[in-house]
Amino acid sequence: MTGVAKSAVCVLGTGLIGGSVLRAAVAAGYDAWGYNRSHAGVRAARADGFDVGDDIEAVLKRAAASDALIVLGVPMPAIDSILSDVRLLAPGCALTDVVSVKAPVAATVRRHELGARYVGGHPMAGTAESGWAASTPDLFRGAAWAVGVDPGTHVEPWTRVARLALDCGAVVVPVVADEHDRAVARISHLPHVLAEALAVVGAGGGDLALGLAAGSFRDGTRVAATAPDLVRAICEPNAAALLDALDDTLRLLTAARDTLATNATLGELIDAGYSERDRYDTLHRWNITDIRPGDHNWLERLREAGQRGGVIRGLD
Amino acid sequence: MTGVAKSAVCVLGTGLIGGSVLRAAVAAGYDAWGYNRSHAGVRAARADGFDVGDDIEAVLKRAAASDALIVLGVPMPAIDSILSDVRLLAPGCALTDVVSVKAPVAATVRRHELGARYVGGHPMAGTAESGWAASTPDLFRGAAWAVGVDPGTHVEPWTRVARLALDCGAVVVPVVADEHDRAVARISHLPHVLAEALAVVGAGGGDLALGLAAGSFRDGTRVAATAPDLVRAICEPNAAALLDALDDTLRLLTAARDTLATNATLGELIDAGYSERDRYDTLHRWNITDIRPGDHNWLERLREAGQRGGVIRGLD
Repeated sequence: MTGVAKSAVCVLGTGLIGGSVLRAAVAAGYDAWGYNRSHAGVRAARADGFDVGDDIEAVLKRAAASDALIVLGVPMPAIDSILSDVRLLAPGCALTDVVSVKAPVAATVRRHELGARYVGGHPMAGTAESGWAASTPDLFRGAAWAVGVDPGTHVEPWTRVARLALDCGAVVVPVVADEHDRAVARISHLPHVLAEALAVVGAGGGDLALGLAAGSFRDGTRVAATAPDLVRAICEPNAAALLDALDDTLRLLTAARDTLATNATLGELIDAGYSERDRYDTLHRWNITDIRPGDHNWLERLREAGQRGGVIRGLD
Repeated sequence: MTGVAKSAVCVLGTGLIGGSVLRAAVAAGYDAWGYNRSHAGVRAARADGFDVGDDIEAVLKRAAASDALIVLGVPMPAIDSILSDVRLLAPGCALTDVVSVKAPVAATVRRHELGARYVGGHPMAGTAESGWAASTPDLFRGAAWAVGVDPGTHVEPWTRVARLALDCGAVVVPVVADEHDRAVARISHLPHVLAEALAVVGAGGGDLALGLAAGSFRDGTRVAATAPDLVRAICEPNAAALLDALDDTLRLLTAARDTLATNATLGELIDAGYSERDRYDTLHRWNITDIRPGDHNWLERLREAGQRGGVIRGLD
């Protein structure tokens, strides 16, 4: 997208998201390679022609020598351990991640004293599948990619991360960690919890109910097909924000339950849900064009623009 | 599917479901026509070459003269009124419906003394769209179509209804009204309620949250795009069964909420949801082949087979 040379990219963890970042980066012309701890994952990626190894030391030494942008592609429970390796072998590299929560990752990064060149990231894409086999270079096309604008973020790594997101086909949503975590609790983590509950209650009707199930049940439970460990790794580190979202949900459902019991109506829920789904359907992602990374107050201005639904589609 | 001459079919209400029945019946070679109370709906259907009128008296007199199978394609709130017309003008016709609840329709049919030739029906298909414009002859292809086997059901109208469902491309799930209503509360009505709640809680995160929303939110709220009056007409007549399903859901979500609050885990919900979604994905709709309509105890045997996930894919 620009004449600027693309920095090297080193992806640690080549599952669905990390693997897709690697594929998309290579497709966009980056010098990119990866690490996976599983031999099967390494073999699969190599069979597809990608430069993936299982020697974390070699992979990170190469990142340090190439001044690569390191992308943490492992789930939250593995972040602490992999950051120990980064701290030891490539502490000077620019650093981002693709984990579904941002504040816990940022806290861990700070504990490893790697905050200076860290910029949180979260591409909003996925499938119920997981692992390298499910990865694709087009996963992020048209997707939102949250990029952190927390106070103290440095412009050089920020621009690298935003550029990678754009080169992967995504639009950049600038957001600070706490606000990101509260937002995704509502639109990503809560959908997982509701899908699990719907699957259980639906199956409570036995084979008759499951045999009658059609589109509303299929779509409503789709993400319940995600591997349980992955769902826990996605949702549980965001417990406080998810709790708020769950409590809001319980209030709404309890009110609907009560009006259903007393006068056989679902009350205001149906109109409210229709109206908010329509708001989602018609949401306009407007382009942020007047804020240049590094300008005075750029972080706060990008944060405020992101809150109002603004996205970045290109960098000068 | 057989050499037997197809009976005429008269569809009252040509919205998404009724309109699709009319299209599918015509495509399958039935002499079929319809009624719609809206002039716009009539014009649209006629423009597409279908025989639809807005004169209920003429439409029903033709049904009586042709010994047509009458299909009630109107939503629950309109059932009582249209049954008054049927009672007056075509009381001897075989009668079925496509309403999302069965016990309330059956009770209304009995009140109009039309029970002798009535067989409840419910094709499990739909979209968030509504009206004739959304109808398609392929809507029921591969879908389950619940056909009532309540005590006292007569074999002749039952066979007509089952044959129509099969000719529309569906598989027949034999079920009694109460059990149908309890099942669809879990796999059709509850998904609507959860979708509405998710839309509201998600939008509570503002444009930032909606801008970050991806597949899990989109799929989880899809049916919230259904017209609110239609959602109420689908869900509220099934209040008692939906209440049970909602209470089960509230129990699960409250338990998950509590473990999340106390030790940051979602507890057993994730594994249970994954396991039940897998049960749905791998459900085998086995073929009922050894029960012939009219045989000794056929209604009870079909009911029991349906409870165990059996479907009918053809009639002798």
